Amino acid sequence: MPEPSENAGPGGPGLAGQPIGPDGPRARVLVAGATGYAGALAADLVWRHPDLELAALTARSEIGTPLNRLYPRYAVPLELRELDLADLDDVEAAIVAYPHGASAPVVAEMRGRGLVVVDLSADFRLEELPTYERFYGAHGAPDLLDGAVYGLTELEREAVAAAELVANPGCYPTATILALAPLASEGLIEDVVIDAKSGVSGAGRDKGEATAFTTVTENVTAYTPVGHRHRPEIAEKLDRLSPSDAGIESITFVPHLVPLDQGESVSCYVRSGRDVGQDELDRLYEQAYTGEPFIKLCDAPPGMRDVRDSNGCHIQVIAGDDRIVVFAVIDNLWKGASGQAIQNLNLMLGLDETAGLR
Amino acid sequence: MPEPSENAGPGGPGLAGQPIGPDGPRARVLVAGATGYAGALAADLVWRHPDLELAALTARSEIGTPLNRLYPRYAVPLELRELDLADLDDVEAAIVAYPHGASAPVVAEMRGRGLVVVDLSADFRLEELPTYERFYGAHGAPDLLDGAVYGLTELEREAVAAAELVANPGCYPTATILALAPLASEGLIEDVVIDAKSGVSGAGRDKGEATAFTTVTENVTAYTPVGHRHRPEIAEKLDRLSPSDAGIESITFVPHLVPLDQGESVSCYVRSGRDVGQDELDRLYEQAYTGEPFIKLCDAPPGMRDVRDSNGCHIQVIAGDDRIVVFAVIDNLWKGASGQAIQNLNLMLGLDETAGLR
Amino acid sequence: MPEPSENAGPGGPGLAGQPIGPDGPRARVLVAGATGYAGALAADLVWRHPDLELAALTARSEIGTPLNRLYPRYAVPLELRELDLADLDDVEAAIVAYPHGASAPVVAEMRGRGLVVVDLSADFRLEELPTYERFYGAHGAPDLLDGAVYGLTELEREAVAAAELVANPGCYPTATILALAPLASEGLIEDVVIDAKSGVSGAGRDKGEATAFTTVTENVTAYTPVGHRHRPEIAEKLDRLSPSDAGIESITFVPHLVPLDQGESVSCYVRSGRDVGQDELDRLYEQAYTGEPFIKLCDAPPGMRDVRDSNGCHIQVIAGDDRIVVFAVIDNLWKGASGQAIQNLNLMLGLDETAGLR
Amino acid sequence: MPEPSENAGPGGPGLAGQPIGPDGPRARVLVAGATGYAGALAADLVWRHPDLELAALTARSEIGTPLNRLYPRYAVPLELRELDLADLDDVEAAIVAYPHGASAPVVAEMRGRGLVVVDLSADFRLEELPTYERFYGAHGAPDLLDGAVYGLTELEREAVAAAELVANPGCYPTATILALAPLASEGLIEDVVIDAKSGVSGAGRDKGEATAFTTVTENVTAYTPVGHRHRPEIAEKLDRLSPSDAGIESITFVPHLVPLDQGESVSCYVRSGRDVGQDELDRLYEQAYTGEPFIKLCDAPPGMRDVRDSNGCHIQVIAGDDRIVVFAVIDNLWKGASGQAIQNLNLMLGLDETAGLR
Repeated sequence: MPEPSENAGPGGPGLAGQPIGPDGPRARVLVAGATGYAGALAADLVWRHPDLELAALTARSEIGTPLNRLYPRYAVPLELRELDLADLDDVEAAIVAYPHGASAPVVAEMRGRGLVVVDLSADFRLEELPTYERFYGAHGAPDLLDGAVYGLTELEREAVAAAELVANPGCYPTATILALAPLASEGLIEDVVIDAKSGVSGAGRDKGEATAFTTVTENVTAYTPVGHRHRPEIAEKLDRLSPSDAGIESITFVPHLVPLDQGESVSCYVRSGRDVGQDELDRLYEQAYTGEPFIKLCDAPPGMRDVRDSNGCHIQVIAGDDRIVVFAVIDNLWKGASGQAIQNLNLMLGLDETAGLR
Repeated sequence: MPEPSENAGPGGPGLAGQPIGPDGPRARVLVAGATGYAGALAADLVWRHPDLELAALTARSEIGTPLNRLYPRYAVPLELRELDLADLDDVEAAIVAYPHGASAPVVAEMRGRGLVVVDLSADFRLEELPTYERFYGAHGAPDLLDGAVYGLTELEREAVAAAELVANPGCYPTATILALAPLASEGLIEDVVIDAKSGVSGAGRDKGEATAFTTVTENVTAYTPVGHRHRPEIAEKLDRLSPSDAGIESITFVPHLVPLDQGESVSCYVRSGRDVGQDELDRLYEQAYTGEPFIKLCDAPPGMRDVRDSNGCHIQVIAGDDRIVVFAVIDNLWKGASGQAIQNLNLMLGLDETAGLR
Repeated sequence: MPEPSENAGPGGPGLAGQPIGPDGPRARVLVAGATGYAGALAADLVWRHPDLELAALTARSEIGTPLNRLYPRYAVPLELRELDLADLDDVEAAIVAYPHGASAPVVAEMRGRGLVVVDLSADFRLEELPTYERFYGAHGAPDLLDGAVYGLTELEREAVAAAELVANPGCYPTATILALAPLASEGLIEDVVIDAKSGVSGAGRDKGEATAFTTVTENVTAYTPVGHRHRPEIAEKLDRLSPSDAGIESITFVPHLVPLDQGESVSCYVRSGRDVGQDELDRLYEQAYTGEPFIKLCDAPPGMRDVRDSNGCHIQVIAGDDRIVVFAVIDNLWKGASGQAIQNLNLMLGLDETAGLR
Repeated sequence: MPEPSENAGPGGPGLAGQPIGPDGPRARVLVAGATGYAGALAADLVWRHPDLELAALTARSEIGTPLNRLYPRYAVPLELRELDLADLDDVEAAIVAYPHGASAPVVAEMRGRGLVVVDLSADFRLEELPTYERFYGAHGAPDLLDGAVYGLTELEREAVAAAELVANPGCYPTATILALAPLASEGLIEDVVIDAKSGVSGAGRDKGEATAFTTVTENVTAYTPVGHRHRPEIAEKLDRLSPSDAGIESITFVPHLVPLDQGESVSCYVRSGRDVGQDELDRLYEQAYTGEPFIKLCDAPPGMRDVRDSNGCHIQVIAGDDRIVVFAVIDNLWKGASGQAIQNLNLMLGLDETAGLR
């Protein structure tokens, strides 16, 4: 394993003794599953983070390869290694980027050793175990479900700050719930159609012809038009936000693959039970998001490019002729995955929520 | 003006005396407004057409420039010229690719000289003059409205064949109406959300920063989320298809710009008054489109790339959990503009509908 | 296997009795290795060819899949099948798109059964067996080397027309040799640097992360900067063109991967033994290429897009300050592979060289 | 003008009294010409810089528009204003991103008021006035030429640190000179061919059809194959590096436009007077660049994507069969323009050279 001096990040070992913000030494963080797009970015974000120290990178392939060779655009020189319990002794926190199902047992072991964990998989996102089992199969650590906090930071800030296990939301649910939360909380969603578009990195690494350049370029295609796994996640969270007497009749969610790398947008078409004017909409969204460091309310349709390589979410809400239209854009790898993971980890460790994210 | 031998196209002058299909010499066709993307492609399609002869290319800029210099990917060597009445003497037909509003007076003049015309602008698409005036301003030739046929070929084949003036549909209406016609005809559309995506060529030529590479690449952005001009065109035609007792309560149409050149897709989310199963949907769409040379029904979401540079329209219809979902893809410059113009002109001239289109 | 009526192509079985150009029935052609990009395009070109009939499609994977499902953009409804000697009985010609090394034995068998063959692999391109063995390993049918003709059509027209086995040139050699032949023939190349750029389809299908969208987009990278397999092919053919007393001292060839699907360009920087003016260069290239149906000489740098989906090669030659600069662009899948294969097959079968190619 | 509290940047006004690194308050910097790509990025880099304060943004168009509306991906909320001498009173430094020719008079005025200036134009790059005049026309402030330092930071570190006017190098010269300096210094360049590729942002804003998405996508085209303005800049600087007795016989430079936004690469093909092995090359480049914070020596061809949105320059040098091949990649807007401007300004103001750049 590299010497501390090598993996202390740009700050260098000299910083190792510094307080984290006000109250402590740089927290040592392990990133598990760092070969994938989200894990690799998480590792780079920890590496460049002023208050965190990248303790180690683990993976299930590419063992021995330095991350900056696998991803030359990331500076991290650490080599990928197999996960070893011994690695966890001097580690305070972990970001786990394992596939759904494979994550739960690893997280359980880490929790058993006292690490605080942000899990990027779906394993701890759903409150309803039967729903999880229907979409993902048997659960590897159902007993941890109760203690897990759904890390959509803006909506769960206090719970996240107190949590020891945070389930990082899916990319589509992140954009969709941020787009619709102010309406859901007011019981203003009777029926919603969500047309989502995602860049190719959302599909993950090594997916063969499906994500080959020649398949994706000059192309736009819908996929999983019925039964996408993110629909139940969206439905459960929106229902939880809705006033008890106001159920959402219908949620239609259809994702599309678009020819770009990082970026995601949702166009939400909402039918409300009553007329809602632009003024009321503006008021609701300002109440919900004014002062949020990563959310920007726009008066024109936001573009994916506007939030590329940032943890931002840009939102526009419009009182349309027949429906309320809400657009939200994020970078699927940042606010949709690793950026939000750091945002959550910052809160869990008592750091500034925005540390290392701009 | 080039000699006949120069502008007879690949067939060469030797073909000039041949019958059109069964019954006549190659029709001489003028393309007006050939500097734009649609006009230039129309010129190339006429140039390569076995039964048509490109009589002349006119434009309001780039006068004297050969088309194959302005668009090296097109073979047409003819120079762009100013429109001159004298050009029309030996011309039988014209394809007009002028901007909305500028087209009507030119079309009126051509009709006065007996040419059959396919007009790519919106000037003759809407039956309701007040609707036209609200979205496009004063009309330059309202008296021609009655005689104009809306050239969505698959739905208006007989009328097009008998027409002397065809209004070529907009790109979004073409994809949307083909996607929804079988449902509209059965009164199965109570409410529909249409999320449309278009390649950049749909915006037209020379649009400055809005269509600059650096603005569009790595980006997806909605535009004109309320009041897009294609919405009334879609609404009027779908209403006309619907049984008199079944009105469509709500049509929401929102277009998005995606980072590719030619291609367009619509994702249509339909709420019906009653449950409709996959079998019934398949039967409806097969009844409507079996045997259509340019329409393919798919059992997986079609991709824009599948119809690139072709006059095809690929459609999938799905009985979703809450709504009927219909996807349709076209090439906005082909079936969405110049390809359909040739398809219509073929019928107007008594040629095989598919001549020169594959 | 589909009925003849199903696989006669758009022309339909009605054409089956027609002469090929002047002298025969539609030739039945088998395409072997149709899952790859080049093989699939070759199948589509045969399918749409007025004088050829697609007898069958064979592959080593995807057996039973219709080609228009594997590649929805191609119309061919035939299913991929395993190669079976019985398929060859009523087949006159074959286009083989197998990997280097795997092709030779298959071609040998086809030749043994009297088929005329165009081979897209490198197996029969090099005259020097030792050179082949150094770059590709053992040769599967060395005895066929002598009879094979190198199918750079414009330079070998007569030999191709008389050949029964044509080795289709590599994509880079095609563009490079067409760019440099007029200079080589005059002994005007003392030293040449060839900087080549290729779209991703040139890498072939299913290459994993190397050709994943997220790897290639927003990126340009050189590859195989030393020892690329196309260099000896270029060197052997240019040497053959050079006057016996004028050897080429140095050929440097470096390819780059650019973020687009189909397209290839070579920028050639030539040092000559003497001063050569623009007039002399123009004269040399006009002498070489005037009247060539697929070659266009340009007075501005040609763009890859200008020849996309065509069999064209656009060339500009410039008398630079210190060197002669020659640019050539082709579509790597058309003139660089399957288009040129059809061009060669047309000649071998006594058809118009351009049949089915525009 | 915005209140200090508004334009102090993320650090906020609280930082305004802090030392710059060791020795002073945050320097107030004006960015002139902030509507263009380079000026806008320079403004964003100053805005996010820990030791600099963005005093104002000036432009010649878009007056009154906040930069974060013109470029939503940049956070800067300041409005663009006309340049006003009064703005300069409390300003210490300026980054000028004006067009060639327009820059010199503005820079002269700023220098007259004591500002230190980094100029992004070509106006102060060339030592030889006649060369400037031949390529750019009359010079607006020839008397300032002597005092200007050519800001290729790695080669001019001390001079830059002592300079009050720095001419920021062109993007192509930056990549090319960094790629070739170790060879030039040893007199190892007899003849060099430089094949350069640039993303579209290198062409600048609002260039019409030439940089329209539909023109550039799926395309690669050479431009200005003879007489590009960056060639004399490259030649003058390489000559200055060469031992007096070793002249460079020939420099061929040809740029190409590739379909991506930010990124640039140069492939350099060098003929030396003697044989040079890989070991010697590695030693030369390590001597030149070991310890450089922004330069990385690679053992595989670097990709443009590897340095996207960074100030890095990745270089590989190879002892090829006939020539030395050197690849270098940069982000044309960062190391090729605004990133290097900040790197230079940091040195001029006594800050850490890397401040605000990672």
